[in-house]
Amino acid sequence: WYSTPLRGGVPGMDEILARVVAPLPSYETRDKSPPPPESNSLEFMHFYKSLDKEDKVGFLSKLSQDFGVDHRSVSELSVKLLDTQLRDQATILQVEDRIRYNLTPRYKQLLGHISRVEGGVKFLVDLRADLLEIIASKTSESPHIRELNGTLKGLLSEWFSVGLLRLERITWQSPCEILQKISQYEAVHPVRNWTDLKRRVGPYRRCYAFTHAAMPGEPLVVLHVALTEDIADNIQSIVREFATLDSEEDVNKINAAIFYSISSTQAGLQGVELGNYLIKRVVRELQSEFPHMAQFSSLSPIPGFSSWLQGLLAQYRKEGRGSDLLSEQEWREVEQAVDSTPGPPTVDSLRKLIGTSEWMHSERLSGVLEPVLMRLCAWYLYGEKRRGYALNPVANFHLQNGATMWRLNWHADSSPRGVANSCGIMVNYRYFLSETSKNSALYLQNKVIAASEQVLGLVSQFQKNSKL
Amino acid sequence: WYSTPLRGGVPGMDEILARVVAPLPSYETRDKSPPPPESNSLEFMHFYKSLDKEDKVGFLSKLSQDFGVDHRSVSELSVKLLDTQLRDQATILQVEDRIRYNLTPRYKQLLGHISRVEGGVKFLVDLRADLLEIIASKTSESPHIRELNGTLKGLLSEWFSVGLLRLERITWQSPCEILQKISQYEAVHPVRNWTDLKRRVGPYRRCYAFTHAAMPGEPLVVLHVALTEDIADNIQSIVREFATLDSEEDVNKINAAIFYSISSTQAGLQGVELGNYLIKRVVRELQSEFPHMAQFSSLSPIPGFSSWLQGLLAQYRKEGRGSDLLSEQEWREVEQAVDSTPGPPTVDSLRKLIGTSEWMHSERLSGVLEPVLMRLCAWYLYGEKRRGYALNPVANFHLQNGATMWRLNWHADSSPRGVANSCGIMVNYRYFLSETSKNSALYLQNKVIAASEQVLGLVSQFQKNSKL
Amino acid sequence: WYSTPLRGGVPGMDEILARVVAPLPSYETRDKSPPPPESNSLEFMHFYKSLDKEDKVGFLSKLSQDFGVDHRSVSELSVKLLDTQLRDQATILQVEDRIRYNLTPRYKQLLGHISRVEGGVKFLVDLRADLLEIIASKTSESPHIRELNGTLKGLLSEWFSVGLLRLERITWQSPCEILQKISQYEAVHPVRNWTDLKRRVGPYRRCYAFTHAAMPGEPLVVLHVALTEDIADNIQSIVREFATLDSEEDVNKINAAIFYSISSTQAGLQGVELGNYLIKRVVRELQSEFPHMAQFSSLSPIPGFSSWLQGLLAQYRKEGRGSDLLSEQEWREVEQAVDSTPGPPTVDSLRKLIGTSEWMHSERLSGVLEPVLMRLCAWYLYGEKRRGYALNPVANFHLQNGATMWRLNWHADSSPRGVANSCGIMVNYRYFLSETSKNSALYLQNKVIAASEQVLGLVSQFQKNSKL
Amino acid sequence: WYSTPLRGGVPGMDEILARVVAPLPSYETRDKSPPPPESNSLEFMHFYKSLDKEDKVGFLSKLSQDFGVDHRSVSELSVKLLDTQLRDQATILQVEDRIRYNLTPRYKQLLGHISRVEGGVKFLVDLRADLLEIIASKTSESPHIRELNGTLKGLLSEWFSVGLLRLERITWQSPCEILQKISQYEAVHPVRNWTDLKRRVGPYRRCYAFTHAAMPGEPLVVLHVALTEDIADNIQSIVREFATLDSEEDVNKINAAIFYSISSTQAGLQGVELGNYLIKRVVRELQSEFPHMAQFSSLSPIPGFSSWLQGLLAQYRKEGRGSDLLSEQEWREVEQAVDSTPGPPTVDSLRKLIGTSEWMHSERLSGVLEPVLMRLCAWYLYGEKRRGYALNPVANFHLQNGATMWRLNWHADSSPRGVANSCGIMVNYRYFLSETSKNSALYLQNKVIAASEQVLGLVSQFQKNSKL
Repeated sequence: WYSTPLRGGVPGMDEILARVVAPLPSYETRDKSPPPPESNSLEFMHFYKSLDKEDKVGFLSKLSQDFGVDHRSVSELSVKLLDTQLRDQATILQVEDRIRYNLTPRYKQLLGHISRVEGGVKFLVDLRADLLEIIASKTSESPHIRELNGTLKGLLSEWFSVGLLRLERITWQSPCEILQKISQYEAVHPVRNWTDLKRRVGPYRRCYAFTHAAMPGEPLVVLHVALTEDIADNIQSIVREFATLDSEEDVNKINAAIFYSISSTQAGLQGVELGNYLIKRVVRELQSEFPHMAQFSSLSPIPGFSSWLQGLLAQYRKEGRGSDLLSEQEWREVEQAVDSTPGPPTVDSLRKLIGTSEWMHSERLSGVLEPVLMRLCAWYLYGEKRRGYALNPVANFHLQNGATMWRLNWHADSSPRGVANSCGIMVNYRYFLSETSKNSALYLQNKVIAASEQVLGLVSQFQKNSKL
Repeated sequence: WYSTPLRGGVPGMDEILARVVAPLPSYETRDKSPPPPESNSLEFMHFYKSLDKEDKVGFLSKLSQDFGVDHRSVSELSVKLLDTQLRDQATILQVEDRIRYNLTPRYKQLLGHISRVEGGVKFLVDLRADLLEIIASKTSESPHIRELNGTLKGLLSEWFSVGLLRLERITWQSPCEILQKISQYEAVHPVRNWTDLKRRVGPYRRCYAFTHAAMPGEPLVVLHVALTEDIADNIQSIVREFATLDSEEDVNKINAAIFYSISSTQAGLQGVELGNYLIKRVVRELQSEFPHMAQFSSLSPIPGFSSWLQGLLAQYRKEGRGSDLLSEQEWREVEQAVDSTPGPPTVDSLRKLIGTSEWMHSERLSGVLEPVLMRLCAWYLYGEKRRGYALNPVANFHLQNGATMWRLNWHADSSPRGVANSCGIMVNYRYFLSETSKNSALYLQNKVIAASEQVLGLVSQFQKNSKL
Repeated sequence: WYSTPLRGGVPGMDEILARVVAPLPSYETRDKSPPPPESNSLEFMHFYKSLDKEDKVGFLSKLSQDFGVDHRSVSELSVKLLDTQLRDQATILQVEDRIRYNLTPRYKQLLGHISRVEGGVKFLVDLRADLLEIIASKTSESPHIRELNGTLKGLLSEWFSVGLLRLERITWQSPCEILQKISQYEAVHPVRNWTDLKRRVGPYRRCYAFTHAAMPGEPLVVLHVALTEDIADNIQSIVREFATLDSEEDVNKINAAIFYSISSTQAGLQGVELGNYLIKRVVRELQSEFPHMAQFSSLSPIPGFSSWLQGLLAQYRKEGRGSDLLSEQEWREVEQAVDSTPGPPTVDSLRKLIGTSEWMHSERLSGVLEPVLMRLCAWYLYGEKRRGYALNPVANFHLQNGATMWRLNWHADSSPRGVANSCGIMVNYRYFLSETSKNSALYLQNKVIAASEQVLGLVSQFQKNSKL
Repeated sequence: WYSTPLRGGVPGMDEILARVVAPLPSYETRDKSPPPPESNSLEFMHFYKSLDKEDKVGFLSKLSQDFGVDHRSVSELSVKLLDTQLRDQATILQVEDRIRYNLTPRYKQLLGHISRVEGGVKFLVDLRADLLEIIASKTSESPHIRELNGTLKGLLSEWFSVGLLRLERITWQSPCEILQKISQYEAVHPVRNWTDLKRRVGPYRRCYAFTHAAMPGEPLVVLHVALTEDIADNIQSIVREFATLDSEEDVNKINAAIFYSISSTQAGLQGVELGNYLIKRVVRELQSEFPHMAQFSSLSPIPGFSSWLQGLLAQYRKEGRGSDLLSEQEWREVEQAVDSTPGPPTVDSLRKLIGTSEWMHSERLSGVLEPVLMRLCAWYLYGEKRRGYALNPVANFHLQNGATMWRLNWHADSSPRGVANSCGIMVNYRYFLSETSKNSALYLQNKVIAASEQVLGLVSQFQKNSKL
C-alpha cells in the first residue's frame, strides 16, 4: 500500500529484472558462482538510462521490493540462532554468518557486477542520486527504496574509501576538461570567466580535488584555498583581486591557509565522507609545502541567515514582541536611519531595510546595523539547532570536522548574493589541528560547539537583548 | 578451549586493543561517530609489526575474540524479528537492518580506518596473509580467527573490486622498480637474468599487471603472454628463444595469444578474484590491438602430476594390481627398455625410470612412455577431483574461468623442473570466448569439465587400460 | 649617415655592451674560450627588456654596428686566399676556414650564450621580432641591423630545426594553458568561446602543434584539421556546426582531411620554415590513424581579394576601361540588379555593391555576381604576382609546400570577415602527396603554379573578358 | 695525392652522391629551394650503413672532396671584396655575406635534411664518430675529411646547444631501458649488478643525465653524485657501501656533493661541451634541494699516472739519474722494504714493487711509498703538460670547468683497476662556485692551474727531491 503502484507500462521490465538479477546462491555455494557476462550489467544500465523519470521510480521500486532480502530464510535462521545460544561459539558464529549472508539483498550482487564494467561506478553514483531525490521528494516512501539506498550507500562508501582516492592539485597546466568542471562545480563563489578561473589556480591560491580511479577526469570534491598573510575577513579580496594573476608568490607573505570554497560534485555520494578527509589531506599537503604555516581556517558563507532573520522578525512582530530584539537605543537609531515612526511598524522598516542591499552603501545605516546583525547572526549559527546539531549546513560540516566557530566578519561579502544570503556577513571556522579530533567527537556525540570568545560574546549579547 | 591460550606476555596488548578498537556505536548514532585520529591506526600497525610470530597469533586471537560481534544484542534482535513477522514490511526491514548492523564485528571499523592511512591497505593485505597461514598451519583453530579472516576478505574484495584496478602493460620502458618485482614474482618459469626479462617484455611478448591506487608500484597479479603463429606446444620456444630480442614484430605472424605464466603476488588476496579478470581484460586489450586474433590459450604446467603418479604406482603395486595400468604390449616394451624382468618388479622399474629425467634423452624410452604418460596425465587432470572439482590447482583455475582443457603436449617442458613435476608434459587451456561464460557456470555449479576430443580420447584410453 | 643616429641617452649602454660582448677569440684559441658566467647573459636580457622601444633601436644599432665582423681581418685573409690559389688544397681549405671564422660577427657568440640560459631562446625569438619590425617599418635601414637579423635567423633555424620539434596533438585533455594559447593564436577563424574551442579539438577535428624543448608550453605553429566525408567547400560547416560536439566519430564517414587554419605564433620565427613541415608531419600522422585516407586539402581564406578588386575597379574606371571586366550581358544584369544607369557609373555601382555584404542575401544579385567574382578571384590568386610568386600570401605558402590550387568555392565563408575580405569566396589548396615535391620545386625555381582545370578555366574566362 | 685513393668498387656510390647532394643554390635563390623528399635522406642513410668500414672511408672522402666548397666562386668574391673596400658599408657587408654563403660546403645542406628525419640526428652523431676515428687512426689525412668533421661538429654544437638539452634525474623509478644504458655507459667505476645499480640511484646518491629531444631514451652525458658529510677521500665507501640501500636520507648528514663519475656516451659529440654544463646544472639542482650545501667536489681517478711513472723511472734509470727522485732516506727504506741492494738496481726494485698491488697490503711498504708516490702524482697532475694544458685528461676537464685541484687522497681506490692506474691515489677537484668562472678563464687563456696548498706543497717537495 505504501509502495508506489507499479505501472505495467514499461515493456520488458519484469523480464529484464528476472534475467539480470540472479538469485542469491546458497550459503554453501556462495564462492562458486561465476560472475555473469558483462553484457548483463550493460543491458541493465542501458535499460535504466532509457527510462523516463516516472518509469525509473517504478523500476527501482520493483527492483528493491521483489529482489531484496529473502525474509523467510532470515526468520528461520533467527529461530535457529536462538536454539543454538547454549551451544559452542563456533556454532553461534556460523549461524550468525549465515544470517549475515542471508541479509544480503539479492540485487546487491548485481550492483557489484555493474561496478566492474566501464562507466559502472559512475552509473551507480547517478542511480543513487536518483534514489535520494525520490526519497527527498517523497515520490516514493517505500521502505524497500530506502533499503536499496542504504545498500548502495554502503557499497559506495567502500569503493570511495579514502585510501582509494587520489589527491590532485589543479593548476593552469591541468587538463582543460578538469578545469572546466572545476569551474562548473564552483557553487559557493561562481567563476565568472576563464581569467577568474586562472586566478583561482594561480599564485597565492591552491585548488585541490579528490579523484577516483573508477571515474577518471571527474573531480569528486574540490577545495579552494587562498594563501594569505592573516586570516582573511573578506571574500572579495580573494576572488576579485586581480593583482595576483602574474605575480610570483612571496613565501614570506604566506602565513595562513584560507579554505574559501568546498564543493561536492556528486549528489549520489551524499553521506560518503569526502570533504572532511580532503580538508585534512590538504592541511598535510600545505604543511609539507610551508613547514611554518600554523593558521588554517575557512572563510565561509552563511546561507539561510537572511531568510531565518526575516522569519524571526515576522514572528516577533506577530507575537507583538517586536521591540525585544534590539535595545531602545538601537531602535532609535534604526528609526532615525529610516525616518520611520516608532513602535511595531519599525520591525517592518527593519525587515524592509535588510531586504535590499541599499543599507550597505550608507555608512550610517551600516554602523547602526552592525552590532544588531552580528549578534543575530552569531545566534543563528551557534544557537539554532536541528536535532541538536547546528541548523546551518556549512556550520554543521565544519563543526563535524572539528573546527572552531572562530570569527564573524562584518562586510565580508559585498556581492549581491552575499548580501542577500547573509547581510554580507561571513564566518571563519578555524582548524586548530591539535583540537579537531576532540572537537569533532564532542560535537558529534555531545552536540557541543567549540566557539571563540568573539562568537560567545555576540551570542551572549543576543541572549541579553532578546530576553531569552 | 579450542582457542589459542593467550599468553600474558606481550605488555600493553590489552591496553592497546582497548584503546584503539572503539566500541560499535549504537544503531541510532552510527553516522555520528567521527573517525579516530590517524595516530590510532598507526599505533596499531606499529605495534602489530613489532610482534614476533607467536605473539601475533595471540594478538589476533584476542582481537577477534574479544572485539567481535555482540552476540547478545543479535539474539535479542532475533527475538524481536520473530515477533514482528506479522507486522508491516517497513518494520521487518528495520529490524533486519538492525540485525545486519549488529552483526558487524567491532574490529571491522578499525580495519576501515587502517585502510585510510598511508600503507594501510598493504598492511591489511599482509595481515590477512598472516591469518591465512595461521589457519592453514592449524596454529589456531579459533572460529573467531576464521571470522576475522572472513571479515577482512570481504573488505579486501570491495577495495580490490575490478573497477578499482588499473591494467598496466609492462615494457622495457616501465620503471625498473616494477620490472624488478615482475622478475621476482615470476614463479612459473623463473627469470634468469635481465636479458631474459627484457625478452619477456619485448617483441612477440606482452606482459600485463593489475595495480591498485592504494598500493602504488606493486603489481598484484601478472600475466605473461606470447604472440605466436600457432598455439604453442613447447615452453622453451617461448622463454628461451633469443632470436626475438631485437626483431620487429611482424603482425602477419601473430595469430595466437599464449598465456604462459600468471602469478598472484599477494598471499593476502587469496580468494579475491583477480587472475580471472586479468585474463579477460587482456583478451579485450589484445583484440583491440589485433582485431583478427581468434586463438587464446594458456600453455600451463601440471604441478603435482609426477608425485601423484608415483603415489598411484605405489598403491597399485601394494594392491597387486601392478599390471593394470599398462597394456601387455606396453609392459613388454618397458621391460625391454629397462632390461628388466616381468611382473610386479616392473612397476618399480617404471617408478625408477620416471624418477629421473634420463628417459627423456632416449628416443626409444621416450617413445615407449609417451602413450602411457599422456593418458595417465589426462586422467590426472580430468579425472582426479577434490570436492568434485579438478584436483590440479592450475586446471581448477582455468576451468573456473571457463576455459576448455584443450591439448596435452608431450615434450613440452624439458627443463629439470618441468620433467620433475610433470614428466615434461604441459597442457593448453583454451579460451573460446563465446563459451567461457557457459563453461564457467557448468563447471562451478555442476562440476562439468569442458574438454577437447584429444583429452577425452586419452581419458577413455586410460579408463580402458586401467580397468576402471 | 643611413644608420639611425645613436642617442647618447641611455646610461650604461656602451658600458654594458663593452662588457658583455666579448671579443672574438683568435682562430687559434677559438676552442679555448670558456663561456662567460650566466649573469652576463641575464644582465644583457634584463637591460634590453628595460629599454623603451626607441632605445631598443639605438641599442640594437650599436650592437650590430660596433660588435659585428672585423672587416679588416676578412680583407687581409682575402688577400691571403688569393695568394694561395696555386698552393695545395689543404692550405686553401685552411685559409677559407679562417675567413669563415672571421666572418662571424662578434655578437654571435653572445647570442649563443643567451640561448643557454632559462628563457633565453624565447628572448631571442622576441628580439628578432623587434628586428623584423624595425626593418619592416623602416625605422632603421642600417645594413648592420639586417646583418644582425640574418645572423639571428640562421641561429634560430638551427635551433628550431624540425628534428628538434615535437608534434603535439591538442585535445580537451591538454593543459588549459596551452588551449588558451591555441585560442588566442587562432587568427584565421577566431574562437568565440570555450565551447567553440572544445569543438575544435573534439570529434571530427584534429588540432596539432609543434612545440620546442626550449620554449615549453608554447605552441609554435598550430594546424586545425577537419575530418570530413568530402573536401569541404564551406567554412561555417566546420567552425559553426554544433552537432559534432558530443558525437562519436564514425570512421566510415572520414575520407578527407581539411586543413582549415594554420597559424604561426612567433613573429620572431619568420622565415624559419615550420608550417610546411607541420602539414607534412600531420599528413603522416593522419595516414597512420586512417590508413585509407587519400584526400588532403586546405580550405583557405583569400585575404586581400576584396581590396585588390576595389583597386582594380578604381583603376579601370580611371582608365576609362570600366566596361572591360564584364561582358555586356553581365553589365546589363548588374544594372538591372542595382537599378542603375549604364556606362561608367556602373563601375561605381559595382564597387558599392560589393562594398557591403547585402548582395549575399539576394539570390538574384548573388547569381549575377558569381561568375564575375569567381573569375576575378581566380585571376587574383593565379595571375597576380610579386617578384614572380603569387601575390596572395596564403596561396604562396601552400604553393611553396607543393599544393595544387584546386577549387574556388562560392559562398564558402558567409561571416562578415569572409565577405569583407574575399566576397565570401574560399579556395582549396589540395595536397596530392605524390606531387608536392615536384610542384614545390617547380614553383620555387620556375614560378610555375600547379592549378586544377576549374581554376584554369576561370582564369581563361577572366583573360577573355578582360581583354588581357 | 694525399687523399685516400678512391676505390671504384662500391657500385652506385657516385650515382647516389650525385643524386642526393644537391648543388648549392645561388645566393639569390637560397631561400627558394624546397627541401628534397625525405626519401633522399633515408636513401643516403641506408646506403651508408650498408657499407663496410673501408668503403665508408672511401665514401666520406668522396663526399667531402667532391661536394665541398666551390673554391672558385669564393676566390672571385674575394677579389670583389677587395675591390669594394672603399665603398659603403652596406656593400661590404653584402659581399661578405656572399662569401660567407659560398663558404658553405655543398654537403652541409644534406646534413641538415638528414637531421630532420627520424633517427637522423643519431645517424649524424655516429657518422661523426666514424670521422673522428678515421682522423685519429690516420686512416685518411685528407683535409676535406677534416673539413667535413668541422662542419658536422658545428652543426651538432648548435643542435646540442645546452638550451635544447633536458636534465633528467635517474632513479629506480626511471625506465629500465635508461637504467640499463646508465649501467653500460658507466666506465669509471663499473656497475657490477643491478643491486649495485639500484644503490647508485638510491638514498645518498643522485644520478643525472642530459637527454635530447632528437635522441629519446638516450642519456648523452651522465653524472653520478654521492651526498656525504665530508668531502669523500675514498671511492669504495661510495660504490661499495651496502648499508645505504634501504635507509632513508638524513638531510642533516648531507653537507657535500661528490661527483664521483661523469661519462659521455656519444663518441660523435666529442668537442661539444656537455659535461661542463651538466655539472653546473646539477650544482644548481642540488642547491635548490639542499639550500645550505656548500661543498661541491669531484672524487676523480688519475688514469695514466702509473704508466707515466713507469716511464719516468725507466728514463731516469737510463739517464743514470736513478737516485734523484727519492731522498737517500727514502731509498734506504725502499731497499729495506724489498730487501734489495742499493744503487741503480733499486730503481728496478721500485718499478717492480709498484708494478703489482702487493705493497698495498703491507703497512710498512705502504708507509714508505706514500710520501714518494703522493708527490710524484701531484707533479704528474700539476706539472705535466700537453700544449701547455694538463696532460691528464680528467684534470684538464675539471680545470677547464674552473675547478681547483684540491686534495690528493692516499689509499683512495683499492680496486685492482685503481691500484693499476694510479697506485690507489685519487684526487678531488673542488668547485668553489664563486671562483669557477675566473679559474676557467685563467686556465684556458693563461694556462694557470688553481691548486690548493696541499697540492702545491707536494709539488714543491717533488721539485726539491727531483732536482728539477
